[in-house]
Amino acid sequence: MIPFERVVVAGVGLIGGSLGLAMRERGLAREVVGFGRGRPNLAVALERGAIDRYGLEPTIAADADLVVLGVPVAAMAGVTRALLPHASPRALVLDVGSVKAPVVAALAGVVRPPAAFVGCHPIAGTEHSGAANAFATLFEGSCCILTPTADTDPSAVERATRLWEAVGMRVESMSPAVHDRLLALVSHLPHVVAYSLAAAVEGERVEGRDPFAYSGGALRDATRVASSPPEMWRDIFVENRAEVLRALAGFESAVGRLKRWIEAGDAPALEAELGRVRAARERLPRR
Amino acid sequence: MIPFERVVVAGVGLIGGSLGLAMRERGLAREVVGFGRGRPNLAVALERGAIDRYGLEPTIAADADLVVLGVPVAAMAGVTRALLPHASPRALVLDVGSVKAPVVAALAGVVRPPAAFVGCHPIAGTEHSGAANAFATLFEGSCCILTPTADTDPSAVERATRLWEAVGMRVESMSPAVHDRLLALVSHLPHVVAYSLAAAVEGERVEGRDPFAYSGGALRDATRVASSPPEMWRDIFVENRAEVLRALAGFESAVGRLKRWIEAGDAPALEAELGRVRAARERLPRR
Repeated sequence: MIPFERVVVAGVGLIGGSLGLAMRERGLAREVVGFGRGRPNLAVALERGAIDRYGLEPTIAADADLVVLGVPVAAMAGVTRALLPHASPRALVLDVGSVKAPVVAALAGVVRPPAAFVGCHPIAGTEHSGAANAFATLFEGSCCILTPTADTDPSAVERATRLWEAVGMRVESMSPAVHDRLLALVSHLPHVVAYSLAAAVEGERVEGRDPFAYSGGALRDATRVASSPPEMWRDIFVENRAEVLRALAGFESAVGRLKRWIEAGDAPALEAELGRVRAARERLPRR
Repeated sequence: MIPFERVVVAGVGLIGGSLGLAMRERGLAREVVGFGRGRPNLAVALERGAIDRYGLEPTIAADADLVVLGVPVAAMAGVTRALLPHASPRALVLDVGSVKAPVVAALAGVVRPPAAFVGCHPIAGTEHSGAANAFATLFEGSCCILTPTADTDPSAVERATRLWEAVGMRVESMSPAVHDRLLALVSHLPHVVAYSLAAAVEGERVEGRDPFAYSGGALRDATRVASSPPEMWRDIFVENRAEVLRALAGFESAVGRLKRWIEAGDAPALEAELGRVRAARERLPRR
């Protein structure tokens, strides 16, 4: 049995496009339709096989039984308000955003039974955005966090779980607040740091020399995610600002600690700390 | 003609070991001998073909016409003092350290004509250290900075240039001070940031959950170089502290700028800045 009749993907970017590709390849929907603001990216999505057809008007969602929200976080509620009147009354609505508490709160007032919303965050992605960079295996082996609340229909959670598992993900549930604190640490903070690091170096000149010309792998890797889409990260930073600022405060004290030892020329303290951090980092899961 | 009769590599780590491998493969020396404090790494270097033989005593440098210093920056002068009396009187001494001004100053008092010292920084490497991770092609296509001073024998600079070019590097000369300011920006600062980021996240727990378990590629890449050797980076941070602290101050203002916009929820300012930084980062040379 095909799980979904018609999926509408709003925002056919890296995640939305990859989900379209994966669902079509695995026969998880009879039809995948794309919705967006701009024709060029939708045309790429169509050409790459991520969607069967697309539209710039919300009527493209007609009778959809699955609505996937792949737009920037602050746009989720507005897009849902536009699409939902056209979709099936029992539609399942999922988002794929990197911040959950404000999205879950906003969508609770928009998606009403028998339709159901489940907040989802497939932790997968690269710094490359758009349908052009989508690929069907993006999700395989990674974790998808679901953030149901006491009000969430359990059968909707079950359908969402089956979908993410079908495209190769491990599924785990937690509260929106716990999600947002965890992701602030492992994703949002590294993005603030990467953008700041690139900003600090790019404008410098040393006797007319551009430092970038002397960069090895350290700067390139440490700033990789500073190539991520501004409109997506603008919303994540703003919508999750309390947790981002909290994580940033922890980072600033860690910088301050190293800085004091460097100022003092305290080689033994530095070596001990660098050794401790290096050992801790070995616990990071490998790709 | 074989350029060197006997090379002694002091510190057969990633760089020293890779240089040994590259020189032996390309017939750039009749013999490569290893000098170090610990037998295990030297035995690995021997087994991997990075050296022909090794010793723990400075007499291993007997009659060497090339001395390569691959030890932590603060140890360079002491190791040279130990080895040089055994080497050929006309020996060429090169270091491969990531900080140049203090090494150049210290070695000027240790290496006397007809021996000659040339400060070198082959900008190549990975976060993996030791002879076990050495490979002959490490240097290919990367830049080696030489930092001769007014007192440096021009023929020594020429021999050093030919050596680095022979293992595949582009060679460029600049003053030790310019080198140290450039490298503080593109290498030392990213290392401080990576160690600090890993330190800030590794100790956190969110309702008992370890954030590392939810990490995607952003944290992994942004902290990659926090797996670098503590004894090497301890010395780099301390020896280049003025420039590292200056680079760090620039980074802290960049963080502060983003932070103020996040606090204010200023989405347009954030989007503009993230877009500007993303575009600037496109200028970073690719691997």
